[in-house]
Amino acid sequence: MKILRVNMKEFEVRWEPVSSEYEQLGGRALIAKLLLREIPPDCDALGPHNKLIFTPGLLGGAIVPTAGRLSIGAKSPLTKGIKEANAGGTGGDNLGKLRIKAIVVEGQGKPKQFYILVIDGESAELVPADDLLNTGTYATSDKLQEKYGTDATVICIGQAGEQLMTGAGIASTGDKDQRSNHAARGGLGAVMGSKGLKAVVIKKPLGKSMELKDEKLFRAAAKAFAQELIQSPKLGTKGSQHLYGTASIVGAVNEMGSLPTKNFSEGQFEPSTELRGEKLRELVLAREGKVGTRCMPGCVIACRNLFPDASGKPIVGTVQYETIALVGSNLGIGSLDDVAQINYMCNDFGLDTIETGAALGVALEAGLAEFGDIEGILGLMKQIGEGTVLGRVLGCGAATTGRVLGVRRVPVTLGQAMPGYDPRTLKGNGVTYATSPQGADHTAGNAFGARKEVNPLGTEGQKELSLKLQIIAAMLDSTGLCLFARPPIISNPQLMLDMINGIYGWGWSLEDYDRFTRDVLRTELEFNQKAGITQNDYRIPEYMREEPLPPHNAVFDVPDSDLDSLFDTL
Amino acid sequence: MKILRVNMKEFEVRWEPVSSEYEQLGGRALIAKLLLREIPPDCDALGPHNKLIFTPGLLGGAIVPTAGRLSIGAKSPLTKGIKEANAGGTGGDNLGKLRIKAIVVEGQGKPKQFYILVIDGESAELVPADDLLNTGTYATSDKLQEKYGTDATVICIGQAGEQLMTGAGIASTGDKDQRSNHAARGGLGAVMGSKGLKAVVIKKPLGKSMELKDEKLFRAAAKAFAQELIQSPKLGTKGSQHLYGTASIVGAVNEMGSLPTKNFSEGQFEPSTELRGEKLRELVLAREGKVGTRCMPGCVIACRNLFPDASGKPIVGTVQYETIALVGSNLGIGSLDDVAQINYMCNDFGLDTIETGAALGVALEAGLAEFGDIEGILGLMKQIGEGTVLGRVLGCGAATTGRVLGVRRVPVTLGQAMPGYDPRTLKGNGVTYATSPQGADHTAGNAFGARKEVNPLGTEGQKELSLKLQIIAAMLDSTGLCLFARPPIISNPQLMLDMINGIYGWGWSLEDYDRFTRDVLRTELEFNQKAGITQNDYRIPEYMREEPLPPHNAVFDVPDSDLDSLFDTL
Repeated sequence: MKILRVNMKEFEVRWEPVSSEYEQLGGRALIAKLLLREIPPDCDALGPHNKLIFTPGLLGGAIVPTAGRLSIGAKSPLTKGIKEANAGGTGGDNLGKLRIKAIVVEGQGKPKQFYILVIDGESAELVPADDLLNTGTYATSDKLQEKYGTDATVICIGQAGEQLMTGAGIASTGDKDQRSNHAARGGLGAVMGSKGLKAVVIKKPLGKSMELKDEKLFRAAAKAFAQELIQSPKLGTKGSQHLYGTASIVGAVNEMGSLPTKNFSEGQFEPSTELRGEKLRELVLAREGKVGTRCMPGCVIACRNLFPDASGKPIVGTVQYETIALVGSNLGIGSLDDVAQINYMCNDFGLDTIETGAALGVALEAGLAEFGDIEGILGLMKQIGEGTVLGRVLGCGAATTGRVLGVRRVPVTLGQAMPGYDPRTLKGNGVTYATSPQGADHTAGNAFGARKEVNPLGTEGQKELSLKLQIIAAMLDSTGLCLFARPPIISNPQLMLDMINGIYGWGWSLEDYDRFTRDVLRTELEFNQKAGITQNDYRIPEYMREEPLPPHNAVFDVPDSDLDSLFDTL
Repeated sequence: MKILRVNMKEFEVRWEPVSSEYEQLGGRALIAKLLLREIPPDCDALGPHNKLIFTPGLLGGAIVPTAGRLSIGAKSPLTKGIKEANAGGTGGDNLGKLRIKAIVVEGQGKPKQFYILVIDGESAELVPADDLLNTGTYATSDKLQEKYGTDATVICIGQAGEQLMTGAGIASTGDKDQRSNHAARGGLGAVMGSKGLKAVVIKKPLGKSMELKDEKLFRAAAKAFAQELIQSPKLGTKGSQHLYGTASIVGAVNEMGSLPTKNFSEGQFEPSTELRGEKLRELVLAREGKVGTRCMPGCVIACRNLFPDASGKPIVGTVQYETIALVGSNLGIGSLDDVAQINYMCNDFGLDTIETGAALGVALEAGLAEFGDIEGILGLMKQIGEGTVLGRVLGCGAATTGRVLGVRRVPVTLGQAMPGYDPRTLKGNGVTYATSPQGADHTAGNAFGARKEVNPLGTEGQKELSLKLQIIAAMLDSTGLCLFARPPIISNPQLMLDMINGIYGWGWSLEDYDRFTRDVLRTELEFNQKAGITQNDYRIPEYMREEPLPPHNAVFDVPDSDLDSLFDTL
């Protein structure tokens, strides 16, 4: 395999062999190690020393269902710590097939000059992006696919990333006309913008496939894994995730009193009945939209939807739970049509819906519009796309918005907005938000699925639960596996081991595999520590430790000692 | 002596005796100890757990010339660390005469409800400030003096503090109609705003004076100190500081190539000849303004001016060096009349001119107006007063402005803007900016005066120089002494010791006095460390370590190891 080094200052594109220290790494694991080795952890995240990495997980490119996620990483301008965000689409699979371990974008050219990196088999070049400036991710993807083929992967930023807004994500295309798989979190779009990189285009590598060191071992494990997925009552095509997508949990989270409502001031939202997965499916089907589609080739869960308006015109896909929570209930919005409108604008401008929803919640608390006032909210969104000063404030995320508007109730840890689970009533997630090197991020260790085993309102066992989940998340993010596909691997890690050994022939033992996953967290924690991040930066905001959340009137009260000792047994 | 505790939540005002741990403290020293003991260092600086402290230095109220500065302190919302800022005016003297060791404002009421604390001898009460909302510091001071006497001290915030802008300072009145002695730095005005405190009024304590434990000892030392001040060729009424004020150094700093110019992108500004102290004096005298006035009763240096416009109408007093550098050359402004206009608006809205000038510099680099475009700049200033979103961004200071506008070249350390000495060409100040628990602050240890002893462009000796200056600054800020009055004390510390022992009868030795000053820094460093601040937060920004500053083309290259070990010998 090889690494593609792209120097934006020297305007140089160079292939290099994978050095031994990176060989047995991929995805989030590779990002962690590469950043720790190659950049000063205290560097300016939007300066020339940061590096932006695109890397598939270890399974990327191999024929493993639901395992082609593309990891993108850099030092985050939002958290000032290490960041990995991943997305579906065809990027992970195509990079794997091209045997590209990573694309590493380095240096920095002149401000506001943008380029496109085009990868076509063995060839890679930078071409000017002058005709794509100030263009949203939809039009950018359309234009680039028009030029490079509708089967090319387009990974790009919108206006938010170009303008270095720290709430900007990176969008990636999937099969056919699929758009907007977002590596959304941590302001990675701003890092891409700071590099002067508008898009990466990967032309479809025809007839390429991963070389398998032990084909038999791999095929047996991959087949067993796929069957487990298909046969699981919760997964597969009869599972709630296939039927309702991530939105399947709206009702349960609301029931728990953990649904972010009106800037995290309440935990239940009465009109959330209108936001549930069942309602979403019903609406989409009635309007002849799509449900049950895939974000990655070969996925056997297929949780994706394409949401149309009342006339049947496609608006946005996929409407996800986190978006529903953050730009729906969190803004007092009880209509999926309204959620879809905001979602579309976020996707087009290239913004994290979680960060932007949280920023809007703070702005509404400051009185810039009423909660539930969709016209007011769309007006605010429009300003982000236009890059007005207010738009830039919102586009920089919840922490900046709170600071500028003088609002104290800002739901962030490590400078990053919380996703759709109030930490006061799902304390395991609070522990993850307050300890993960990734900042407030449900994908770093989501305790929602364990709500029946560990009382979400109690403080007991949350620390142990979060650590376990964070280790699993590190594995998922480093292999390219979707988190929905984790159950078979968790109950039988040998399956993952056989797939990895089958592809690469590394002869890993279960101990090697365990060390690999734990090392991801260790490396990230070391990076953050060297970046000057301390326990205080990770803490749940003061107001959430003191203001009871209706209706359960819980506060976040997991003791600091639990948080500070969480990784002691890592 | 006693402490006045003011609880803004319970609406309670309470006198209490000074406990033993605070007895031998004052000014910055008291602030450091009280904050470390009484507030959680990781608390929300704009939340209910922060405390705002007003305290004279140890000499406050005694008849010592140039020693009545009022210290104000809290956890800073700008640096997230400990903060002390001090100002002239009559506040320090009056509190001392009333034998009030400190006013400690605690808790937090409802947002946007403001009160005035009125102290009249033994009585203290909170009264509503409804008629002063959204009122600048000039009109606030006028109205309150109209009501409580023109000889009352009025300490107040303007629109910036009310709106929690983190660039807000606190203004204090002086003798007669003197206005705008600002405890400007670190966003203390926002803390006062967050407490719902619009103003503190101290009615003049008639016939009160400090009790002296050893009058003879005190009088001898105070007299010797005053004579040294008067007789010094640099101080007294023939010195350049009396004649030209702090602006006396404009020419020298420009000559050194250290004058912040156009957002710290150059170190010399050709039109700075129009900004020099000599020019200032000439203009003020020609227009029948005032020069050589005092900010504190009994000052024998009298460096203050009152700057009139061409028609002779008073505009602002006092126009200071830091303001000239930050809103003058730093914005490409080469006219004292323009500087005075911006200065007036900063003072009226209650803004730190350093922080605001740096924020405007960043905004000009982002293209919001041209450097030198006074109309454009005044338009931006106006927005701060109006509290528009752009105004709020600017009012929150340079770091926030840089983040929102996507500008990387932001001259801050610890989140606070640098004063008028580029650290690349006055490296001793760079060391102070990068190590002081107060963040970028020349008053924490200004190496300018030592430019002939330690080469400002070299790295040798800067660490030792900065440490020495920081210890002296801690002494000044804890005794209420103006930094201009330090030479006699530095050459003969016994003078200070005798004055303190004469007032309080503590029998301090020189060792006690040395421990007292060093303890200030130790306590502050401990607070900041517990607040989660690390070495990385203190660092000079990356671009200043890499981008040479014309015309000397120097970078800031004092090694991190020097910075990290600076306090090892404290």
